[in-house]
Amino acid sequence: MNLKELASHIGATTHAANPGDLERNVHGVQTIENAGPEEITFLTNPRFRKQLAGAKAAAVVVGQILDDLSLPQLVHPNPYAAMAKASSLFQSYRHAFQGQSPLAFIHPDAKVHPQATIYPFAYIDQGAQIEAGAIIYPNCYIGIEARIGARSILFPGVTVMTGCQVGLDNIVHPGAVIGGDGFGFAPTAEGIEKIPQIGAVRLGDDVEIGSNTTVDRGAFDDTTIGKGCKLDSHVHVGHGSQLGDYSMMCGLSGLAGSVKTGKRFVGAGFSGIAPGVELPDGVTAGAMCGMLTSQTEPGLYHGMPAVPANEWRRQAIAVSKLPELLKTVRTLTARLEALEAAAKT
Amino acid sequence: MNLKELASHIGATTHAANPGDLERNVHGVQTIENAGPEEITFLTNPRFRKQLAGAKAAAVVVGQILDDLSLPQLVHPNPYAAMAKASSLFQSYRHAFQGQSPLAFIHPDAKVHPQATIYPFAYIDQGAQIEAGAIIYPNCYIGIEARIGARSILFPGVTVMTGCQVGLDNIVHPGAVIGGDGFGFAPTAEGIEKIPQIGAVRLGDDVEIGSNTTVDRGAFDDTTIGKGCKLDSHVHVGHGSQLGDYSMMCGLSGLAGSVKTGKRFVGAGFSGIAPGVELPDGVTAGAMCGMLTSQTEPGLYHGMPAVPANEWRRQAIAVSKLPELLKTVRTLTARLEALEAAAKT
Amino acid sequence: MNLKELASHIGATTHAANPGDLERNVHGVQTIENAGPEEITFLTNPRFRKQLAGAKAAAVVVGQILDDLSLPQLVHPNPYAAMAKASSLFQSYRHAFQGQSPLAFIHPDAKVHPQATIYPFAYIDQGAQIEAGAIIYPNCYIGIEARIGARSILFPGVTVMTGCQVGLDNIVHPGAVIGGDGFGFAPTAEGIEKIPQIGAVRLGDDVEIGSNTTVDRGAFDDTTIGKGCKLDSHVHVGHGSQLGDYSMMCGLSGLAGSVKTGKRFVGAGFSGIAPGVELPDGVTAGAMCGMLTSQTEPGLYHGMPAVPANEWRRQAIAVSKLPELLKTVRTLTARLEALEAAAKT
Repeated sequence: MNLKELASHIGATTHAANPGDLERNVHGVQTIENAGPEEITFLTNPRFRKQLAGAKAAAVVVGQILDDLSLPQLVHPNPYAAMAKASSLFQSYRHAFQGQSPLAFIHPDAKVHPQATIYPFAYIDQGAQIEAGAIIYPNCYIGIEARIGARSILFPGVTVMTGCQVGLDNIVHPGAVIGGDGFGFAPTAEGIEKIPQIGAVRLGDDVEIGSNTTVDRGAFDDTTIGKGCKLDSHVHVGHGSQLGDYSMMCGLSGLAGSVKTGKRFVGAGFSGIAPGVELPDGVTAGAMCGMLTSQTEPGLYHGMPAVPANEWRRQAIAVSKLPELLKTVRTLTARLEALEAAAKT
Repeated sequence: MNLKELASHIGATTHAANPGDLERNVHGVQTIENAGPEEITFLTNPRFRKQLAGAKAAAVVVGQILDDLSLPQLVHPNPYAAMAKASSLFQSYRHAFQGQSPLAFIHPDAKVHPQATIYPFAYIDQGAQIEAGAIIYPNCYIGIEARIGARSILFPGVTVMTGCQVGLDNIVHPGAVIGGDGFGFAPTAEGIEKIPQIGAVRLGDDVEIGSNTTVDRGAFDDTTIGKGCKLDSHVHVGHGSQLGDYSMMCGLSGLAGSVKTGKRFVGAGFSGIAPGVELPDGVTAGAMCGMLTSQTEPGLYHGMPAVPANEWRRQAIAVSKLPELLKTVRTLTARLEALEAAAKT
Repeated sequence: MNLKELASHIGATTHAANPGDLERNVHGVQTIENAGPEEITFLTNPRFRKQLAGAKAAAVVVGQILDDLSLPQLVHPNPYAAMAKASSLFQSYRHAFQGQSPLAFIHPDAKVHPQATIYPFAYIDQGAQIEAGAIIYPNCYIGIEARIGARSILFPGVTVMTGCQVGLDNIVHPGAVIGGDGFGFAPTAEGIEKIPQIGAVRLGDDVEIGSNTTVDRGAFDDTTIGKGCKLDSHVHVGHGSQLGDYSMMCGLSGLAGSVKTGKRFVGAGFSGIAPGVELPDGVTAGAMCGMLTSQTEPGLYHGMPAVPANEWRRQAIAVSKLPELLKTVRTLTARLEALEAAAKT
């Protein structure tokens, strides 16, 4: 693919001192430092602007034209997304196995599409349904009446429990567990009574689930992950929670049970949302933020308990001044006492 | 089962305008909104009281008689637990495989009870013991001389390492690891020396372990999880820790090494207990709480470092007022200076 | 092995009232309480000094000679490391399977050394390389062109994805995932664009990875774990991060993407390092610490946002005094008003 074709694919305009440069064929995307003459690179952080001087890349994806640059430019208002789209054109997963292995266990009542791939040591249980183009790696378990949507990839060691549904074009990374029991228990004087978890999990289309992430099944209602959501490794979603479309959750973040986020929720690392909290569209829970109550306003939140980010920053600055403040107040007290003593005399 | 029989099973009394209604047969528990005429529902949160007007359920489990309600009532002092008990009467896991699969690997020296179930691709190592009624799902590994107690269920991908013991009637969810090495290392000038972890893990009876949770083996002494404990998904218990009976740990919470909790400990989400900390019965570590030191008093703790919840709330409120306080002190200083200046003249 | 030989192996000097005692043979290390007459014990925490009076051990490892003790002593400046070394002499893993199982799947293009061990239900994919003495437990998946270094042990359910490299003498505990995709996405107006993760993961020699830990592959550059690093269970390392040699990360701690630590970094439980942060050698991130910015100084950090530990302690103390401070300021204000009123009259 030459640069012109690539630009057209990713919706970028081109800018080149020598238009002939745009005929050059490219086959990959790399960092400024590592890109070779048949790869393109990208500038998404002005910090790396200087490195472009030494770039060997065929072209650079930029947000706006850089005047003093001899390198051909692919100009796109969202250069990060354009770079992603370009990289996706060149890269796809390699799968070294095809067909349905006789070393897999496929229950006689399972419905596996002839164009699905089932690796050795995968277990497809009774009534499970694997749609066309789905790929099930070794050591995956697909539970009773679970469904794996077309073209979804389940990497090694993924478990999808009874009745759970994975949408179309999902990517589920190794060790993820979809539909383990939610954490529903009623403490009593004698012990702890288990609440059977009879809801399931439903993942929308175009969802990605990170390594060893857990999405627990609902107690009564289903746990749902909206269309286009992306979950990092080591994320936990509790029973009956609903994650809005196009949300992102970073590593070691979690939703407790019965949480309901709006669309485009972002949970940064170690952020947690308390049971039953409801959030509007467009909320971002900052790193290590503990969201204890429902919110009505979109925006970035920080702190534990979470407050709007501006407020948290003011508090954090104030806390950093606190030891000083203690001294100031002690001084003020002494000075006031002096004045009071003087006033009495 | 009719409502009368159900009430008797769960230890509830009945209250119905028309006693004939108590003959109705039911087969499940559902939310107020979703319960049909052959299901019961429950009221555990007064917030949902109004929804009962439109309920189609056969009956409702309540904490005390609601006078103005035509729906038959099952009255129990702990309606949440009564609902759990009722739901358990109707629900049980479905297992579509029986017997001991020739596709599993069972070491010739393992002792597998004839009434245990071993799915394909399970691996039972030398000297391991699987008791009657235990169910071992695909891709589980049961280590050398490990023991799985009667009627315990190990869902797919569970690992129980050498010499570890799972009690009776346990439920272990997918991907959990029982008895991986504890994190014991001695840094030296040359590198980091490993301390062999020669203790094991022992899970009591009626324990439940969530998906991808890890309970590490002890360095010298065993790591123990008391009778009736319930661990959520993504929980971590460090080497040599002892979790008291009937404790609960929520998702993404953890105990470091050599922690010793009392009975009925509760660890909320993201709470962590530091190495060697000892706690009395009845401690709750609130969400994101960091318990750095041993405690002698039961109750709820919050904050990092953790303090009793009331104290933490006072601190949190005070911190939220802190930016205002800084202004106040600046004003006071100015006013004081004015007074001092006036006093001098 | 007798005590003299043991002392020589671990580089300790001996101290015994009766030199004949040093001829005694020993075969293990245990706690003071549990050590029998053919085991040694150790004193690494002065808190346990008193227990030595009742010790039945053959000898005790100490940091310096204890004068009033009849027990033979093995004296080493780093008794904790000496104990670790001694314990390692007596303990090694038991593996009940040898050879390369016909129940494993080994791709015809994989290169498995004749002296590597491959358990049943392991899957070795195309072009993967397993070196001499490596041990691959059941339900492990070794991806396309991945490499497992000599003498490394992969316990059950470990996944190493395409092109990733495990060094020599590694220990990888159950359920760990090496090389799942990093969390790289570009949000757009229409949805979320995936950035293919074309970097790999490289683990140095002598690395240990805990149960269910995830080390994600890089977006462009490799994610690297330096020589001798030790990662606990439930640790997360994001895409493209570089962990310096001899670093340690405790349970439920994490590095976001593109973090670069120095050597001997320590991440305590629940500590997190933000994307792109760079740290010098010798930084310790305290428990629940959120390191949001790069640092230039070694040492212990605490808090969120993280600050040097001393500063954090001053702040934490100041916060605990804050409710009191609020009262003080209210009183000061009233007293000041009284003075002002008096001054006006």
